[in-house]
Amino acid sequence: MAVYTHLGAETLAELIGHYDVGELVSAKGIAEGVSNSNWLIETGGSDGTGARFILTMYERRIEPGDLPFFLGLLDHLSAKGCPVPRTIHDRAGAAYRMLDGKAVALIEFLPGVSVDAPTAAQARAVGAALAEIHLAAQDYEGSRANDLSPGDWRDLFEQCGSDALTEIDPALAGLAHARLPEIAAVWPEDLDRSIIHADLFPDNVLMLGDRVSGLIDFYFACTDMMAYDFAVTHAAWCFDRDGRCFDEAVSGALLAGYESVRPFGDAERAALPVLAQGACMRFVATRAFDWIDTPEDALVTRKDPMDFARRLEFYAEAGDAPFAAAR
Amino acid sequence: MAVYTHLGAETLAELIGHYDVGELVSAKGIAEGVSNSNWLIETGGSDGTGARFILTMYERRIEPGDLPFFLGLLDHLSAKGCPVPRTIHDRAGAAYRMLDGKAVALIEFLPGVSVDAPTAAQARAVGAALAEIHLAAQDYEGSRANDLSPGDWRDLFEQCGSDALTEIDPALAGLAHARLPEIAAVWPEDLDRSIIHADLFPDNVLMLGDRVSGLIDFYFACTDMMAYDFAVTHAAWCFDRDGRCFDEAVSGALLAGYESVRPFGDAERAALPVLAQGACMRFVATRAFDWIDTPEDALVTRKDPMDFARRLEFYAEAGDAPFAAAR
Repeated sequence: MAVYTHLGAETLAELIGHYDVGELVSAKGIAEGVSNSNWLIETGGSDGTGARFILTMYERRIEPGDLPFFLGLLDHLSAKGCPVPRTIHDRAGAAYRMLDGKAVALIEFLPGVSVDAPTAAQARAVGAALAEIHLAAQDYEGSRANDLSPGDWRDLFEQCGSDALTEIDPALAGLAHARLPEIAAVWPEDLDRSIIHADLFPDNVLMLGDRVSGLIDFYFACTDMMAYDFAVTHAAWCFDRDGRCFDEAVSGALLAGYESVRPFGDAERAALPVLAQGACMRFVATRAFDWIDTPEDALVTRKDPMDFARRLEFYAEAGDAPFAAAR
Repeated sequence: MAVYTHLGAETLAELIGHYDVGELVSAKGIAEGVSNSNWLIETGGSDGTGARFILTMYERRIEPGDLPFFLGLLDHLSAKGCPVPRTIHDRAGAAYRMLDGKAVALIEFLPGVSVDAPTAAQARAVGAALAEIHLAAQDYEGSRANDLSPGDWRDLFEQCGSDALTEIDPALAGLAHARLPEIAAVWPEDLDRSIIHADLFPDNVLMLGDRVSGLIDFYFACTDMMAYDFAVTHAAWCFDRDGRCFDEAVSGALLAGYESVRPFGDAERAALPVLAQGACMRFVATRAFDWIDTPEDALVTRKDPMDFARRLEFYAEAGDAPFAAAR
């Protein structure tokens, strides 16, 4: 949550001049994104009526070679009517430009705010929106392997080391060494695939009341099982922050919303309990790695891996109950 | 440069409901302000056409008792036609509200961007805008003592300690113990006063081309000598970042712009060289204090006190040359 790079008015105005969006009127660095810097940009608009954009500078973690995939996906989904911001192309047609050696992209601004405690009605709308992007992405020509699959979780835990894991919480080493192999052993491989968001937490959804006005931050998007994306979203939306309290109404509404657009097949439904445990394991792994990688007194807030260890236990005990067919 | 507090959509919507500005449409935490958190807020507007505001939460350093002075000053200057954002009052007429034990205020959004390397034309506009607020503030009923006067600089250096100062730079202890008393001994007390901004760096000025569209961040504003405010602004605008390179054209334009609205009297002009040295000493003192107060690996960028020690040397050697009457 930071702006890593200073861009002065002169630099910004020169950059904006490469786009058909009018003159630069305002630019505010915004506190969003952990692997990039973002500015909320206002311009006079190509027709003089004013327009707003998000300018993103890709600072780290994101491979420049992946940008055509990510930015093309936004355009593909937006063109199909999904509430996804489109990429603004420069006068030469490029989706991104280089500035001070870093890639930058100008992205459509979408209204809406991120909720902290979703209602069932909001979860239903999010489920439906997720299914819509799964369907709309099926004919997207790009593809990208998921680099956070079960083998990658194992690698992350190994880089942490058992001692460091135990220092965070005594339960973590057991999760890494016993539970992860169990999940990986039964991990499905043959469920229906599309492009998935893979990180659809509430802060990546903009809402106006009960309506989804924007799905944002597709920088984990990849080709993977659609049911896994639902499982990630379920783990992200149906609990309080630390994973101690499951919200059954939100869970049922998220599932009903998804299935109102794309009903799960039998194999997908049967796999949801293990997919949900895997989704939790993915966040336990990345959070444990980031915990060890982040100095204790850094201003970046470290996220507790145990928040998702608790969710994992919930799913292991609940079995298929949370995923019974929507009524 | 951070957002210190998380405010979810539900909390923000409830807060915005106390103002006659329409429904909350968007909220982005912005990376501005070191002693407060800020959000760029968009609402439907009281007439449904959309409106933008800055929501500020006062986190530290600012005394709540000073808020009526600061917020009333914005309203006073704005009503007089100065490019200063007005305070939006809630339905009950209050200029600020309490949220989670902290004061928050809704402030008018102004267009414009902050320049990195001002041109002479821009400096001229800034000088004129500064003189305009000095004149417009003269009948403001509020007053606030300057808590960063020569005695306060001395206190800050004493809190640092000679060893810590020397560790930052061997020259600093000499500045604190020899130069500061020399400046304080000849510090003028009887020059014309008004409310001064006291921190008008380029990042506190919004510009559209050569026009000043906004003067912001009045949280150091206080009752003090107008010529001292000009000296602060001169030190902030007429050098490159580290104070090694003086820009004579920008200096002349800033002075000419100021005097086009409010010509200096003889006593003020004679005092400008010492006021400029004092202005530099003020920033050397606060930067040295913050340098020692900020952990080396904190994500907040520490500002080098030597940037202003170099400016101080420039002013000491240049005498009255930079402040010759505008032609």
